[in-house]
Amino acid sequence: MSAFQTLPGFREFYPEELLRRNYLFRLWRQTAVNFGFSEYDAPVLEALELYKAKSGDEIEAQLFSFTDKGGRAVTLRPEMTPTVCRLVGAKANALKRPIKWFSIGEFYRYERMQRGRGRCFFQFNADIFGEPGVEAESELIGLLVQNLCAFGLTEADFFVRLSDRDLWVYYLSALGLDEPRIKAVLTAVDRYEKHGEAAFKAYAEVFGEIPAELKTRVVEFLGVKSLDGLEAILAALGDERIVARLGEWRKLLGNLEAMGLSRFVQVDLGVVRGLAYYTGFVFEAFDRKGELRAIAGGGRYNDLLGKLGYADMPAVGFAIGDMTFALLLEQRGLMPPLLSAPDVYCVIGDGEAERHAALGAIQSLRASGLRVEYSLKPLAFGKQFRAATDAGARIALIFGGDEVARGVLKLRDLNERSEREVPLAAVIESVRSAF
Amino acid sequence: MSAFQTLPGFREFYPEELLRRNYLFRLWRQTAVNFGFSEYDAPVLEALELYKAKSGDEIEAQLFSFTDKGGRAVTLRPEMTPTVCRLVGAKANALKRPIKWFSIGEFYRYERMQRGRGRCFFQFNADIFGEPGVEAESELIGLLVQNLCAFGLTEADFFVRLSDRDLWVYYLSALGLDEPRIKAVLTAVDRYEKHGEAAFKAYAEVFGEIPAELKTRVVEFLGVKSLDGLEAILAALGDERIVARLGEWRKLLGNLEAMGLSRFVQVDLGVVRGLAYYTGFVFEAFDRKGELRAIAGGGRYNDLLGKLGYADMPAVGFAIGDMTFALLLEQRGLMPPLLSAPDVYCVIGDGEAERHAALGAIQSLRASGLRVEYSLKPLAFGKQFRAATDAGARIALIFGGDEVARGVLKLRDLNERSEREVPLAAVIESVRSAF
Repeated sequence: MSAFQTLPGFREFYPEELLRRNYLFRLWRQTAVNFGFSEYDAPVLEALELYKAKSGDEIEAQLFSFTDKGGRAVTLRPEMTPTVCRLVGAKANALKRPIKWFSIGEFYRYERMQRGRGRCFFQFNADIFGEPGVEAESELIGLLVQNLCAFGLTEADFFVRLSDRDLWVYYLSALGLDEPRIKAVLTAVDRYEKHGEAAFKAYAEVFGEIPAELKTRVVEFLGVKSLDGLEAILAALGDERIVARLGEWRKLLGNLEAMGLSRFVQVDLGVVRGLAYYTGFVFEAFDRKGELRAIAGGGRYNDLLGKLGYADMPAVGFAIGDMTFALLLEQRGLMPPLLSAPDVYCVIGDGEAERHAALGAIQSLRASGLRVEYSLKPLAFGKQFRAATDAGARIALIFGGDEVARGVLKLRDLNERSEREVPLAAVIESVRSAF
Repeated sequence: MSAFQTLPGFREFYPEELLRRNYLFRLWRQTAVNFGFSEYDAPVLEALELYKAKSGDEIEAQLFSFTDKGGRAVTLRPEMTPTVCRLVGAKANALKRPIKWFSIGEFYRYERMQRGRGRCFFQFNADIFGEPGVEAESELIGLLVQNLCAFGLTEADFFVRLSDRDLWVYYLSALGLDEPRIKAVLTAVDRYEKHGEAAFKAYAEVFGEIPAELKTRVVEFLGVKSLDGLEAILAALGDERIVARLGEWRKLLGNLEAMGLSRFVQVDLGVVRGLAYYTGFVFEAFDRKGELRAIAGGGRYNDLLGKLGYADMPAVGFAIGDMTFALLLEQRGLMPPLLSAPDVYCVIGDGEAERHAALGAIQSLRASGLRVEYSLKPLAFGKQFRAATDAGARIALIFGGDEVARGVLKLRDLNERSEREVPLAAVIESVRSAF
């Protein structure tokens, strides 16, 4: 046995797995195109600094980073957002707005090895730049939902939790908290679902035990599951920013209702998303059974382009990871049998004349767009017919000695079990008319 | 201006370039599937040792190699062949033969920066494992030719030069050369086209000036351009291996003729391909004008799996690089205008009722598979119609206040300039019947 193996946490795609991957990519791509998004891509290797500028120096510990032969600190990309900001920022003036872009790419993280978390994975990313209004959010949530529904998933399988970093900040600020305390509370909110009361420990370590009254109001707010619930809590505060923000909520939920998406969308202030750079609405898609990690996540990040040194531009985006998504499709029985059957199987007699006649027909049939298989090596007729059936071919073309000498071949419909002679010179038309 | 740029020699794909790339990939993939090849893929990061085992320690100088955080010597892959051998070798007993596989992937080389040679590029790779006979070569050359013809290229644009490392070895051995001298001569042959007489310098440095008689016979042989020419030179040698090998040549050229490919294929012993691991037929595709680098290249490499520590298995393969190929298509005017036009553009009135009616219709139309665009922000009707025309939409759907109140909308055919009212509830059927 050879010593060569794939690196730890990396994935190989043998043909069967690649068919599954292509199935995801094909429907994602088609859906995004239907929504008027344009595809882009960029190298998997980027300057390390790009991620430090976005996420801080700590990020390096999780990256496949190294120094290249030119002395540059580089890394395999761990996510797409900084890259797409770089592309948009560099040509901001030349690009027609709103910029609606998507990509399908591979990403790399140097994580401790654990079940269900590989060191490389694929993501579908979609972003809208240049549109400050909630129209961008509804467009993206519409795309996200359709990118799941395209595979046969329904509102019984998944839902989108919709939350708002702005509203959290306005709420906590109206309760009298300063910025450092707001950050500490949001960190606790992010951890509350997983850790419960223990989520407030980090707050306590810096600012002392969180006041019981504040904790009650935070827990109450993160439990809100409707716009009415939000309004009931917030009305009393009489804060202008909050009143305006609730108007944005009504507009966004109104759009989503008009789009027929209410059944997929759940108001849920328990979501804040760990990443620090979100500035407004955030959302995550989960399976209804709650058995899996988030299927997709995203939100608004109006400050990131500026933070990376480009001109400010409003931005919203989301990503779907391939691993949890594929798991969900498999659990729901929605990964179709990915049979890769030829249209035509050519059964070829022993002589050189038969083989040459077949090779000519095969090249023409394939060039005309048909999927054609045959045995590279001479085989007994019976074995060739078995191979045709095993492969799932619909049509067998039989190149026998007598027939080829007369300039014909036999066309057998393997479903209907009918057979007829057709002229060699008209093989393409004959096969096409048989379908 | 931000400091973030793509790394030297790396490429970004803004939407227009990505459309071109997808055009290549789509036709390559479809053609390979028509030929019965199965797609596979693997990570872009591999163990450095894999390439050293194939190509020797010197290779590292050309690679994006580094030591990862687990202390492993790794590299971004510079080519696909070692990876596909690794995948096939690891599951050799479980895979049905012949194994016909293809991939489309990105590759990385740390090359000195020069025009037309980036540090990353894409390749289409196709390989057949498990078939020792020339049937594998004809199948692959058939695929190579069709993968170029699928784009509208003809025999006036490109041709495939077919040569044979075995025949060179047998010929030089029949002339009395030992293995080290054979290698030195083949190195000279590889360089002869570019350097002429100077190609023999490396030979002279090791073995002394090449005998004039030998040089004449080498130059004569590398100039051979037909099977008759080969036979004329080789018949006199009376070598059994050569006689058998000429039989293989006749069989391969017979197959290619039967496939209708003679007009694309040129016998040409001037090609030996630089890489050391080829063991039989080798071939390269060039533009007829001779202005570009090789478009594609490949050959048989029966020893590589064994060399990497797996069970021996015969193998043939080739690769097409994307950069020279795209250049050829552009030069020949064969890169189509890659317009990305929506099917439908929705023109939406000012009120909330109109927008909500439109959003519902848009989500349904997109979910039904149509490409639909609209302005995220309210715009004057005139500007929306201009946008519809600029985008190249075929159909405009007009959501006016009066109409929406009556449960209808206007469907305008922008080509025929006809317009009619259709019920909002039947918008999908109405649009579909308009196409």
